[in-house]
Amino acid sequence: MASQKRIVAVCQMTARNDKQSNINVCSELVKTAKEMKAQMVFLPESCDFIGESKAETVASAEPLDGEMVQKFRHMAKENGVWLSLGGILEKVTDDKVHISHVVINNEGDVVSVYRKLHLFDVDIPEKNIRIMESDYALEGEEIVPPVDTPVGKLGLAICYDMRFPELSLTLTKAGAEVLAYPAAFTFATGAAHWEVLLRARAIETQCYVIAAAQTGSHNKKRSSWGHSMVVNPWGAIVAQCSEGKGVAVAEIDLSYLQQVRTMMPVWQHRRTDLYPSMLPIQSVGKPVPCNEQEEYKFGNTSVKADGVFYKTDKTLAFTNKRCVVPGHVLVIPLRCVYSLKELQPDEVSDLFGVVRRVQKVLRLVHGVDATSMGIQTGKEAGQTIEHLHVHILPRAEDALKKIKMDADERRDRTPEEMAEEASVLRKYFY
Amino acid sequence: MASQKRIVAVCQMTARNDKQSNINVCSELVKTAKEMKAQMVFLPESCDFIGESKAETVASAEPLDGEMVQKFRHMAKENGVWLSLGGILEKVTDDKVHISHVVINNEGDVVSVYRKLHLFDVDIPEKNIRIMESDYALEGEEIVPPVDTPVGKLGLAICYDMRFPELSLTLTKAGAEVLAYPAAFTFATGAAHWEVLLRARAIETQCYVIAAAQTGSHNKKRSSWGHSMVVNPWGAIVAQCSEGKGVAVAEIDLSYLQQVRTMMPVWQHRRTDLYPSMLPIQSVGKPVPCNEQEEYKFGNTSVKADGVFYKTDKTLAFTNKRCVVPGHVLVIPLRCVYSLKELQPDEVSDLFGVVRRVQKVLRLVHGVDATSMGIQTGKEAGQTIEHLHVHILPRAEDALKKIKMDADERRDRTPEEMAEEASVLRKYFY
Amino acid sequence: MASQKRIVAVCQMTARNDKQSNINVCSELVKTAKEMKAQMVFLPESCDFIGESKAETVASAEPLDGEMVQKFRHMAKENGVWLSLGGILEKVTDDKVHISHVVINNEGDVVSVYRKLHLFDVDIPEKNIRIMESDYALEGEEIVPPVDTPVGKLGLAICYDMRFPELSLTLTKAGAEVLAYPAAFTFATGAAHWEVLLRARAIETQCYVIAAAQTGSHNKKRSSWGHSMVVNPWGAIVAQCSEGKGVAVAEIDLSYLQQVRTMMPVWQHRRTDLYPSMLPIQSVGKPVPCNEQEEYKFGNTSVKADGVFYKTDKTLAFTNKRCVVPGHVLVIPLRCVYSLKELQPDEVSDLFGVVRRVQKVLRLVHGVDATSMGIQTGKEAGQTIEHLHVHILPRAEDALKKIKMDADERRDRTPEEMAEEASVLRKYFY
Amino acid sequence: MASQKRIVAVCQMTARNDKQSNINVCSELVKTAKEMKAQMVFLPESCDFIGESKAETVASAEPLDGEMVQKFRHMAKENGVWLSLGGILEKVTDDKVHISHVVINNEGDVVSVYRKLHLFDVDIPEKNIRIMESDYALEGEEIVPPVDTPVGKLGLAICYDMRFPELSLTLTKAGAEVLAYPAAFTFATGAAHWEVLLRARAIETQCYVIAAAQTGSHNKKRSSWGHSMVVNPWGAIVAQCSEGKGVAVAEIDLSYLQQVRTMMPVWQHRRTDLYPSMLPIQSVGKPVPCNEQEEYKFGNTSVKADGVFYKTDKTLAFTNKRCVVPGHVLVIPLRCVYSLKELQPDEVSDLFGVVRRVQKVLRLVHGVDATSMGIQTGKEAGQTIEHLHVHILPRAEDALKKIKMDADERRDRTPEEMAEEASVLRKYFY
Repeated sequence: MASQKRIVAVCQMTARNDKQSNINVCSELVKTAKEMKAQMVFLPESCDFIGESKAETVASAEPLDGEMVQKFRHMAKENGVWLSLGGILEKVTDDKVHISHVVINNEGDVVSVYRKLHLFDVDIPEKNIRIMESDYALEGEEIVPPVDTPVGKLGLAICYDMRFPELSLTLTKAGAEVLAYPAAFTFATGAAHWEVLLRARAIETQCYVIAAAQTGSHNKKRSSWGHSMVVNPWGAIVAQCSEGKGVAVAEIDLSYLQQVRTMMPVWQHRRTDLYPSMLPIQSVGKPVPCNEQEEYKFGNTSVKADGVFYKTDKTLAFTNKRCVVPGHVLVIPLRCVYSLKELQPDEVSDLFGVVRRVQKVLRLVHGVDATSMGIQTGKEAGQTIEHLHVHILPRAEDALKKIKMDADERRDRTPEEMAEEASVLRKYFY
Repeated sequence: MASQKRIVAVCQMTARNDKQSNINVCSELVKTAKEMKAQMVFLPESCDFIGESKAETVASAEPLDGEMVQKFRHMAKENGVWLSLGGILEKVTDDKVHISHVVINNEGDVVSVYRKLHLFDVDIPEKNIRIMESDYALEGEEIVPPVDTPVGKLGLAICYDMRFPELSLTLTKAGAEVLAYPAAFTFATGAAHWEVLLRARAIETQCYVIAAAQTGSHNKKRSSWGHSMVVNPWGAIVAQCSEGKGVAVAEIDLSYLQQVRTMMPVWQHRRTDLYPSMLPIQSVGKPVPCNEQEEYKFGNTSVKADGVFYKTDKTLAFTNKRCVVPGHVLVIPLRCVYSLKELQPDEVSDLFGVVRRVQKVLRLVHGVDATSMGIQTGKEAGQTIEHLHVHILPRAEDALKKIKMDADERRDRTPEEMAEEASVLRKYFY
Repeated sequence: MASQKRIVAVCQMTARNDKQSNINVCSELVKTAKEMKAQMVFLPESCDFIGESKAETVASAEPLDGEMVQKFRHMAKENGVWLSLGGILEKVTDDKVHISHVVINNEGDVVSVYRKLHLFDVDIPEKNIRIMESDYALEGEEIVPPVDTPVGKLGLAICYDMRFPELSLTLTKAGAEVLAYPAAFTFATGAAHWEVLLRARAIETQCYVIAAAQTGSHNKKRSSWGHSMVVNPWGAIVAQCSEGKGVAVAEIDLSYLQQVRTMMPVWQHRRTDLYPSMLPIQSVGKPVPCNEQEEYKFGNTSVKADGVFYKTDKTLAFTNKRCVVPGHVLVIPLRCVYSLKELQPDEVSDLFGVVRRVQKVLRLVHGVDATSMGIQTGKEAGQTIEHLHVHILPRAEDALKKIKMDADERRDRTPEEMAEEASVLRKYFY
Repeated sequence: MASQKRIVAVCQMTARNDKQSNINVCSELVKTAKEMKAQMVFLPESCDFIGESKAETVASAEPLDGEMVQKFRHMAKENGVWLSLGGILEKVTDDKVHISHVVINNEGDVVSVYRKLHLFDVDIPEKNIRIMESDYALEGEEIVPPVDTPVGKLGLAICYDMRFPELSLTLTKAGAEVLAYPAAFTFATGAAHWEVLLRARAIETQCYVIAAAQTGSHNKKRSSWGHSMVVNPWGAIVAQCSEGKGVAVAEIDLSYLQQVRTMMPVWQHRRTDLYPSMLPIQSVGKPVPCNEQEEYKFGNTSVKADGVFYKTDKTLAFTNKRCVVPGHVLVIPLRCVYSLKELQPDEVSDLFGVVRRVQKVLRLVHGVDATSMGIQTGKEAGQTIEHLHVHILPRAEDALKKIKMDADERRDRTPEEMAEEASVLRKYFY
């Protein structure tokens, strides 16, 4: 019984707008967890920092290779434990961050990073809740495959994600045995939903669920629910923190998990003939860095590397020389074809995946609610370059009208202008 | 406040193996519900009958136009209330039933029927649970669109279905405001999961959840958890029955539901770019009855109506003249084409939907675990009839071997044999 | 089943500092409850008024024969229902109230009044809770015997009382079948304790528990937990209100209650040989009004009615002619005896009950933390009047010292002074 | 934070009718607990043995100095931990046991023994529950003062005791910081009440509550609920075992406990002027062993030590020479007085305490439902010996009639008969 025990520690704290003080608390909690024999320690969302304003929050963000993560890596190594940083502010641009769940192994290496998919944009006046994470955060673009840890295969999520069974089912189908939902849940929604949702996620996926939580009053405007807990695959709370700062430990018993799954084989009973199977949608290929010297074929002309802001192994997105409206960019398949029907399915999928992400970034960067997208196929339709290309334009009232009216008046932009615009956009793709 | 109140009643009972006694209890509960101003009354799964053995259960089943449903229709009309019969035994064949959730309006008409999608096949020796519904029941083949009722748009499910968030999300995306989970939950799983799952389903779909339940001891081998309840879209239990037979009433407040959905717009936050959108998979077309006189083109020959056991508006399944193994049947598109690539996507989808259902039925009828499926395209591959056709064979140890070995020895079957076999199979398609 | 059904309605609201608006809401809730067939309707604590300050709260208080109760009596009669006003501000003096739970029958008569025994004096800075009811309220002085209602024998309590099992056990031992805990529970303590305590009270007393509650935000400083509910004697929630204003109804089934008590006869198992039996301590006799013309024997002298501020059928409390310190009063048995040992036990008990209540009032009126009490028996001890009398003095630093030092300097007070003081004190006894 | 941590382990198991196997499981659990840093380990009620029949249960009982406790003492010492044996079968007579909660320190010494006060005599046919502990167990006769342990002052209780708030309040008033409720709770009552009652006991006493539990199926007739847990003084579950055998650990944080008690000072708010204060009733003096040679004065005669079956420091109970009915015994104050009114209150209290216990034992030993008690004061009343004495007679139909009728026929019994009877009765007093 003893030798192969997997012990996790779930931590609870009250982060404030003081990084050093927060990290000191984390350090103390990790030490306690280590004493209680934990092999992996789970810290809550926002274990690094909870600002009093959007500005303060954004200003505190660091890239993942910054000092904050460095300190946590040291903490993991020093204590010989794995760490889940449930959600730290990862700097993306000057005014946007990701809320990133970082897993560090017991040697101090970052082994996985998940960026919060569902941002908490909720406004409930009568409960004094108004949080708009999208004001300062970008949503993640990937469901991260479960990561192997000494306490089992760990599926990563954050806080509000727990309201979306699709994510937990997808992670479980991909092999997760343990789901982590680090959180900074509001008090009022926590009182109503926290325990029920965590237990339901455990019951229906037959995973352990570990939810490290912020608690108490962070500042005058914000309080968190606490109730950090570990739930077993049968849905029972096996460890829970008290009020305030603390640590609770529990065993992860994978043979018990297996027994639950064997007894009640829900995965064999799913009716994926009638509703979708929970497979992650193939996300767009990861960005492939450009070689600065490179140029990319675009029909009978070419695109310079410094005008490219997003490139995968199949697709290219770049700034435009003759813009119909400011912000007008182009997306092309790397392989030069004339029309969509010449593309392979995986090229189509990647092309439109890139288009979708570019649209999202244009909305952000230009502060608009929508974008226009167009493909001209054939000369009659206005296709001048014989390489399939997708126009994306930030939506302005009369953008489309302008396309026809102002075509002649458009001037060519300088390469510098195009490179400058690309360098702004590029930060949003990583 | 008063005039537009929507009142539901959730009922609880202890059904036994005595139809008349059960229906008398239902009648009493409906009367009480009516007195308490309910417009719609929810009866639990198995409100008609709980047998002590598989044989007794199957023997009690009736078709939906049988006497039992007739009595409930009368009950609805007489009391002027809508009824949800949470799960009754609908006869399919002599040894198989559907567990069917039937909605009857206040004029006594059946307005919707949902057949349980997820059968409870669970064996937990240490909790004294062993129920294998698939021993006597067929799984349903359709997610039923929410039905309009005086208490809101009602999504239909049954008992074990509640463990599958895909179904509740699909129903909600299709418009449901109220989800019904009538049940006969086992005591041990009820103690562990019932309340948590029902509340989670309500919270994440932001629907009302109504769960009428069996309770107490039905016979020596089976007891149910009870705890019939109504949960509001914020996840709170608003009505619950006590131990034993009883009725609890609650208001369905659709403006409150709307308020919850506005405050926390989870449906706007879903990341269906990364996981599947919860749309029902287009299920196979409904069976289209054959005209007895009709014949259907099959290449240069034809198929008689009495050999057909399943026909949609695009596809035909019929018994075979020269069987490789007993039970060998054929499926063809109604439109005569030579190969798959000539079919339109909707024809392909329907063809293989039919194939899947036929395979399921062959497994049942022939008591085998698997079937073999084959398409011969081109003369070289053995295609003799120039009309695309799919062979389906019940799996036997050496079925495939036989295909080549015994080809010459096969004898033609008589039309009577083929019609007889079709009449057996036809019962499984409705 | 139908004819003898007992239906209760539990109401939920968000009272504010506007009596008319609150009473309008109550009226609407009572109408709805009536429509849903309730025979008795339970309104929450503070259904009359929730002030934004102590001053506002006190100013709003009325005597029970005031306009507010009058309106509720009318409401009960008009709707033909019994009403529980879970806690209204009953004026006692200019700066003190009782929090009084008033039961009105369906003819509009007040049939019982319970005054909150346990005042909520709690200060939890980290949860933003600071409520000191004793700043403006007097605690009640009596456990009120259960009152007969159409829905069963009803034991009366209020809010914070639920933390004291002694009260619920005492009420149950005295015959209660239903316990009412109307409340205005704070959000944070509600989230942690509300449901658990109400259900435990039901389980251990095997009573129905009805808890009408305030909900939502009353003003900037105060929010309530809501979750009005009815719990059955087995501990299950049988009805609960949603968020916001509303009504939930449930059946009180006394035969079910009896069944629970028979199945698990906890009252037969109590070990009252080892811990106290839960009988109410005989409280001090009710005040008996003085006849204005009367005089009361006090040894060889007498006490005028206008100097008496509290009189029971055995005991008299009156202001003093020669005060050792301001506020010094006397308590005597009506029967003239020389010493304690001549009194019967019931006289002793009543005498000291009166002493205790007088001490409490002196503390309040004189704003001191303690009082001194003394009996001089025998001439040697300083007894000058041969009628047992108890001195009660508001505690001042050197009060006792003064007794000896200043005895000679004391001057006689005028009858007017004594009557004036008595009239102030008299208000606290009712 | 680290150095003064108090860690408890709560254990869960499925005891069966095999002592050695049960003790092996306990040993394994204790080792695991030790590894997880526990200083005190809590084993459930019936950790020694769960028989399949009353006979088997009784036969397995041992005295506290028997082999079973010896093994546990060794286990405690070997692991250097304190042990709570939540309930073992302590042999009293050949057919009666106590259910005894034994606390052993880390040196292997028994430091406290509590015998279950409330026996679970419950018969709920519709839930398949019928347990009559009083068939084989004697109820305890003492509330045991909290015992000092390294994890705080520990109040002892067992299982069904949790339904009686009087006991937990008494223990808390006596100083308890931690309450232990080891249990073998039935599945059905556990599902309905276990968590609620444990949490309520914690909330209202502001103690930690530790409940080690039996789980699963012990034999064909009996299953237990499990859900071993530790609850903190704010009422939150801080550790809970999964299904099956296991250990969960939690910290006991007495400064947190103190904080809770300061924030919400319920003990200052109690109204012990209106309901009883929760002080243990002075139980009857402990048995004082007789010196074999001694004789005790009984008026002008004397009682031999071998006829005495219960002696306190004030009272004597002994067998009778001339019995009105078989089993007729006498109780006297040790101090020779003529009548009750000459006794001091503490003598009266002890005398009648002894009488009550003797009555209870006579009912058991003679299998009768009642006893008759009589005191003859004065010669006219039949008092022949001038030393106050209480007659106690097992109740037989016509016992009283016989008193008068058969007086003359009564014969003197031999000293041997009297000693023999005393030796039987003496076993019930300890």
